[in-house]
Amino acid sequence: MNSTLDVAWLPAELAKAEVRGGSAIVVDVVRATTSITTALASGARRVVPAVRVDEAREVAAANGAWLCGERGGVPPDGFDLGNSPSGFTKERIAGRTLVFTSTNGTAAMRSALAVGPRTLRLACFRNLGSVAEAVWSEHGSEGNGGVLVVCSGRKGRVSMDDGWCAGHLVRRLLHFGPGFELSDGAAAARELAVGLGAPTAAGLARMAAGRALGKLGLAEDLADCARTDDLRVVPIWRDGAFVSGGEGEENG
Amino acid sequence: MNSTLDVAWLPAELAKAEVRGGSAIVVDVVRATTSITTALASGARRVVPAVRVDEAREVAAANGAWLCGERGGVPPDGFDLGNSPSGFTKERIAGRTLVFTSTNGTAAMRSALAVGPRTLRLACFRNLGSVAEAVWSEHGSEGNGGVLVVCSGRKGRVSMDDGWCAGHLVRRLLHFGPGFELSDGAAAARELAVGLGAPTAAGLARMAAGRALGKLGLAEDLADCARTDDLRVVPIWRDGAFVSGGEGEENG
Repeated sequence: MNSTLDVAWLPAELAKAEVRGGSAIVVDVVRATTSITTALASGARRVVPAVRVDEAREVAAANGAWLCGERGGVPPDGFDLGNSPSGFTKERIAGRTLVFTSTNGTAAMRSALAVGPRTLRLACFRNLGSVAEAVWSEHGSEGNGGVLVVCSGRKGRVSMDDGWCAGHLVRRLLHFGPGFELSDGAAAARELAVGLGAPTAAGLARMAAGRALGKLGLAEDLADCARTDDLRVVPIWRDGAFVSGGEGEENG
Repeated sequence: MNSTLDVAWLPAELAKAEVRGGSAIVVDVVRATTSITTALASGARRVVPAVRVDEAREVAAANGAWLCGERGGVPPDGFDLGNSPSGFTKERIAGRTLVFTSTNGTAAMRSALAVGPRTLRLACFRNLGSVAEAVWSEHGSEGNGGVLVVCSGRKGRVSMDDGWCAGHLVRRLLHFGPGFELSDGAAAARELAVGLGAPTAAGLARMAAGRALGKLGLAEDLADCARTDDLRVVPIWRDGAFVSGGEGEENG
């Protein structure tokens, strides 16, 4: 029996998704999953997602962790870093625990966890191939459970950048083999990715999330968000935080 | 200022949509909006949507109306007609008031009404060009308010047939002029429609709603759902029911 490859275009769909026991992957290209992937690639030890800013402050204070993320696109008062991928440099964060909160991404991560997946990973364009490999190696040969890609969306609405990335992830997974039955959401995302082609900063700049970043003077972040397959790290959920999976994940 | 052309891929997005005072259009290609459009083209006087079956029975009994629609794809006990477009013939329904309930479509209509649009219309492939004309003639020259296309989805999940139709509606509206700013949802639907091309019964049969109909032995309905631009009727909300708009709508 083929296993299901599903894409939720919005976290609101998760109430109706069937992935209990399967593999879930959250996507928030602009910018949460790009930033967290970058942070782990730069040597952050753990990234703890927090939905609310006050919750982020509490968790960071209790753990001696750095506070990172945004509201309205910019870091709240007292945060150590915002949500620009380029801010997560080795010099700043290697070895640190980060607490991360963002408007859409961290809420989507919580929603995905609530579904009860066997694994939860984060994907962006930067680690697309590595995510596909990790999901396939966990899942592909078994042919059961199911794979659910969760687009974070933007303030409760469909976000095209997430659908674009989810569609490319669907395409990568299909390269490994035909053993998936696509949901309508997955098939629609695949069509979108075929239509839009390879990710570009200019393409992201035309979408709602990119336009909003431009208004904040942060359009340069889109170049980082559009980078493709330059990182091997796959953030994976372990004991209350995202840690570095991907290379050597089997030993992790 | 350009007005917004928005597509909600799911009714759940409406909580975050900005269309108060604008034009809303609900799409449920397989099969509610196709059936209601067909019914009005066959001379039904009014079609009253009901979300629940018991509500449909009450309203029909109180109005001497015919009961139409489905649960699980088939007509509940005591219904006069199901949700097959071909069932809504002139011989059966000309001059009648119908009460109509379906799993996804009528709930989407209620959700769209709750947003408080200036007008609410129903679209399917059969009346695509007429809907585009009606919306443009109401809206296009003003350049304010906004247009919101609502995909009914399927049991809370994205339904590809609705996105396909919504995308073609976006394309038709853009033919009239450049005066729209597309939301991410609208741009994604347009890409989907470009990728999938013109509607076909075979295409619908590969999607979740089409596959479900096939299992019920109702795949022949998909030929009616894929018909394009053969009807001029545009169902429009007036005083608690959908009535025939389109040709002569200005006088209606």
